[in-house]
This record gives sequence, structure tokens and C-alpha cells, in this order.
Amino acid sequence: MQSFNLKNYQIILGDDEIWGVVRNILTRGTPYSKVMILVDENTKQDCLPKFLEQVDYKDFEVIEIKSGEEHKTIETCVKIWQAMGKCGADRKSALFNLGGGVIGDMGGFCAGTFKRGIDFYQIPTTLLSQVDASVGGKLGIDFEGIKNNVGLFLDPKAVYIYPPFLKSLPERELRSGFAEIIKHALIADYGMWEQMQAIKKLKQVNWRALIPPSLRIKQRIVEQDPYEKGIRKILNFGHTIGHAVESYSHSSQLPLRHGEAIAVGMICEAYLSNKTFVLPRVAVRRITAFILHHFDKYPFPKDAVEDMIYIMKQDKKNVGGSINFSLLKEEGVAVYDQTCTEDLIREALLYYCDLL
Amino acid sequence: MQSFNLKNYQIILGDDEIWGVVRNILTRGTPYSKVMILVDENTKQDCLPKFLEQVDYKDFEVIEIKSGEEHKTIETCVKIWQAMGKCGADRKSALFNLGGGVIGDMGGFCAGTFKRGIDFYQIPTTLLSQVDASVGGKLGIDFEGIKNNVGLFLDPKAVYIYPPFLKSLPERELRSGFAEIIKHALIADYGMWEQMQAIKKLKQVNWRALIPPSLRIKQRIVEQDPYEKGIRKILNFGHTIGHAVESYSHSSQLPLRHGEAIAVGMICEAYLSNKTFVLPRVAVRRITAFILHHFDKYPFPKDAVEDMIYIMKQDKKNVGGSINFSLLKEEGVAVYDQTCTEDLIREALLYYCDLL
Repeated sequence: MQSFNLKNYQIILGDDEIWGVVRNILTRGTPYSKVMILVDENTKQDCLPKFLEQVDYKDFEVIEIKSGEEHKTIETCVKIWQAMGKCGADRKSALFNLGGGVIGDMGGFCAGTFKRGIDFYQIPTTLLSQVDASVGGKLGIDFEGIKNNVGLFLDPKAVYIYPPFLKSLPERELRSGFAEIIKHALIADYGMWEQMQAIKKLKQVNWRALIPPSLRIKQRIVEQDPYEKGIRKILNFGHTIGHAVESYSHSSQLPLRHGEAIAVGMICEAYLSNKTFVLPRVAVRRITAFILHHFDKYPFPKDAVEDMIYIMKQDKKNVGGSINFSLLKEEGVAVYDQTCTEDLIREALLYYCDLL
Repeated sequence: MQSFNLKNYQIILGDDEIWGVVRNILTRGTPYSKVMILVDENTKQDCLPKFLEQVDYKDFEVIEIKSGEEHKTIETCVKIWQAMGKCGADRKSALFNLGGGVIGDMGGFCAGTFKRGIDFYQIPTTLLSQVDASVGGKLGIDFEGIKNNVGLFLDPKAVYIYPPFLKSLPERELRSGFAEIIKHALIADYGMWEQMQAIKKLKQVNWRALIPPSLRIKQRIVEQDPYEKGIRKILNFGHTIGHAVESYSHSSQLPLRHGEAIAVGMICEAYLSNKTFVLPRVAVRRITAFILHHFDKYPFPKDAVEDMIYIMKQDKKNVGGSINFSLLKEEGVAVYDQTCTEDLIREALLYYCDLL
């Protein structure tokens, strides 16, 4: 068992022994008046039985929602708040969010606002949420087609990371999480990036070993700047274009997962990093090659570029109308608050389009 | 101009000079990318012209919602978030809430969650919000018939209190705010309570003088315990029964304002304070007499008592099923985390019913 001590809470990573920690919280000291678990149909089947068996606590109230980003809405929040009220939750109740980023972000938001805030715990079950979404206190929902447009910064009471949950994930889901691991290395740890070059097949990766350094990078950055006023923005590398690609893809025949879209975004933004900044061409090539080795190329039509630029203009990272980027100065070093012209963004997307 | 320095923000009370302070914020330093004002049809007519003329800043975006507690809902939040998005607000935008408790609570909640939180300023325009709601960071909306069931604790950037706004208020609205002033004195300041005995007619009160001591009581309490884990609960004196009376009244022929319901609640809870605790009978009589001097008796039928008790059981101050009260030990001293039996609560409501 490994623990990471953040300012306001702990992240605990381990095998079956972590359930004993959860059991202790629920049975010692002042018990919660009601303990709820938020799941979707997938985690209800793949993760909840393990949780219930291992934690061995009576009286859980299970709240189930539908999986998928398209349900990360205020309407689903209304259902969650209603379910909490119906099962008699009060201010001394707690919610465990058992699932990926959607469950964690939305469950955290609902807990953080139910009766002005009750305790919540994150149990991320996807690679993406284990290395990224569960750390840093960003909670929220999509609104009016804009991702995380309504939300909060609020820390959970604890995060429990159980890598065996990854075994039930489809490879595509693992790959999505892998994109954020690549990003963490690229923005903050050249040594890790170098080592990752040895990864040829995701099936052979020892996640138990790759999660901690990635978590540590995220932790270090968010603790320096919890409210994203400065340095935390470097975590948005790949995300300005990536979010636009992701939004666009959801209205197309081929919807992308978050990490798949960020993989596209990182290639485009590496290109921008070379054009507007000092990232060497050789680095752009290496980043492009590594990502395309692991991620199928996303075949969007050239006329989708204008749609994507329109979406970027709505991004909440923008300030006063210009499109904001975090770019690479070199592999392992990022800079934030960079702006690019629309023409250059167009060029970067076309660079991706023209890749073999 | 008078200022109260709280830990995270300032409350500024004064006449026209306070608008210069607002103007400075908007024109000096880093200006906001967009400045929005939330109003309802009443404050749009009675307060907005003064604000716009005095602050003399271009480019305000006015967002208007319908007045009244019945609109303090998630549906109205959706409209406010939409309006914010439509006018191009980003993370560096700000919202001014120009109105009473509904505008302040709901506008603060929307600002605190829009793009995970933008700056907001409270400009309370009713007596109730000037002495109470605007201080202490409680934000939220009603949900499923329960007041403030969804919300946040979050401080504004500043609060501007302009007593001349009170001139446009109907007397009934003033009386509603007066109830919270009575409460502040009863729970924390015997001297103030004594002095208030001289008040015979609300029309003759000098609010400019009565607001500061009331604000100071609220400030002192919320700063000791911002998240209502302990001492802050004393502010709930009169509110357990008061909220139930208020909710009940909204489904009756004679809907009460918040303060009017709290006035009923304070009489009933003074009765409980005597029955379960040490508050002398003479104090119950004095409290009853003072309140009935200023507030018409609310004529609810005896069979409404069960409805009210049902509503109390839903209160978010409850923990693990029992009904929670803050009661008076003596005039000017309150205690929290008291519970009463349903029978006694029934008795207290019937005591009120039987008053002449």
C-alpha cells in the first residue's frame, strides 16, 4: 500500500488492503448517518461486488446512473440529489464515487453541493481517473455543450486507487488513460518520457508501477496552484485542441474518448509549440511518432477544422476572447498562457490531417 | 462609510460614496473581461438605475430573473448560467447580485459554479439580506420543496450595503428583516435586546444605526465557525419551526415572508427553551409580547401542526433522524444541538395557536 499525502487529503494506492482502510473509516470514530455509493451500469457490475464484499459494511445505499459523458448533465445531478434526499441523507452522510471521470466529477459536484456539501470519497476505476481526474479537486458537469462548464474546486476526503479494477477495462479505455500519462511526462518529467519510449504494447505495461510517478506529477502541480491561476494550466497541454476534437467527434460518426482526443491535441499542440515557441522539430517528430504508435489516427475531414476552431473559442480557459494554450518549451518542460492565431491553429490541425 | 473586515472580504456600508468604491474596482487594476448584474423585476426598477448612474461603468450585462422564493430553483440557475454563457462570460468575469436573499443566494451559487467559480459581489437591497443573508457565505437554492437544499459555502469578493435602498421597500418586507435583527439580539446581545424594547413602530427606526450591531453579531459568529459545525448553529434559533411554518404557509392561502415565519418560530422555540431548558417564563412572555407587537399573529389551523412536523423532519440541520434546535439559555445567550420530542414540538405550536 502506498500513500500520497496532499494538503487536505490522502491518496491511497494498493491491492485488497485498501478496503480495510475504507472499512475502518466507516466503522470507527463518528459513523456517517448514511453511506451512499454512486455507480453506473458498468461499475455496478464490474466493481461494486468487489467493493461490497471487501468493505463488508451494511446499509450502503447504491445510486445508479447511466454511464457516458452524455449523461454528465444537470439533469443527472437532479436525479442524484433526488436519490440522496429520498434515501434520507443529511449533512453527516457521505458519498463514495465508484467509477471513472464522469462519476467522480459529477458525484463530487453533487456531494459538494448537497445540503451545502457532504463528505465524498473518490474510488476511480479507470486508468484515466486513477492517474488524473481523481486528483486536484476539479468537479463538474457539462453544460450547453461545453465540458465542465458548471462545477467547483473541492477536495474529496480521500482517494482510493485499486489497480486491479483496470483488468476489467477494454483496451481502448486503458489507451485513453495512457494519453494523460504521456502528457504528465511531456510537461514535467523528461526522464519518465525517455523511459516510456520502451513501451511498445499497452498490454505489457505494469500499471501499478506507472501510476505513481504520474500521480506525483499531477499532485506536485495542483498543490502549487489549486485554483489554476498559473502553473496548473500546464496540465492543459493538448487540451485546447483536444477538447475541441473531442466535442466535434461526439457529433460525428466516430466519437472519441477523452484521452484519444487529447492524443490528437498533443500532436497538434506539439506542432504549435515548434511554430510559436522553441520546441525543436525533432521533438515534434518523436512525440508524433510515439502517439501514433499507440493511437490510431483520427480521420476527421478537413472542413471539420472550422467547427473545431469555433468550439475552441468557447473554451473556459480563454480570457477576453483569445484562445489560450499550454505549450512545450522542450520535452519535459511546459509553459502556459500562450496564444496562437487562428491561422496557425488551422495549420496545426491540417498538419495532423496530413500525417500518414 | 463604515467597513467591516471579515477574513476573506469586506462589508462596506454607506451612502452614495460606496458606489465610488465599486467604480474603482471595475476601472482600476486588472479589469474584468465582463461584468454582469443579476436583478429581478423589482430591483431592476427600484435599484438598478441608481447603481448604473452612480457606478458609471459601460458594458454591464444585465441578467433578469423573476422575483420570489418560488423561482429559487435549479431551473432558474440553468437560465442564469445560459445567460452568462450567452453574453460571453469567462473565468475572469464577475457577477454583481443586486437584490434580496433570493438573488444573493442563487446568484452567488451560479457565480460560484460557473466555470468552477467566478468573482461575485453582493449588493443586498432588502433589510433581511442587508443584516443577514449577505454575510456568511451561505449560497444555494431550494430543491424538492426543501429550502437551500442544494448550495455551497463560498464568500463573495465584497458586500456593499446601501441603506437608502430600504426606502423603496414595503413595510412588510422591512418587518421580515426586522425578525433577524431580533434574533441576533436574542442569541448574542442582551444589551441590544434591552435597547430594542424601545422600538414601538418600525417606521421610526433608524436602520442606518441598527444594521451595524446586527451585522457585527452575525460576523462574529460566522467567522468563528464558517461551516456551521458548532457555534454558528445558534443562528438557527427560530428557524427549525420557522422554516416549517414558512414551507407550510407557501402551500396555504397566506404565504409568509421568511422573517414573518421566523417570528412565529422564535415564539415557539422560546417556549421550547423554557420547557426543555432554563429560559425563564418571564423571558418567554417578553419575547412573545415583543414579537406579537410587531408581527400579526399567523392564524394557522391546528391540524397544520402535523404537516409542519413532517416538514421539520426533512430539515438539513437534522442528523440521523432527530429534529435539531438552537434554543435560548437566557435572553442574549443561545445553545445549539438541542433536540426535542415531537410531542413537545406539537405543544409549542399549540402554545402559539392559542395566543390571543
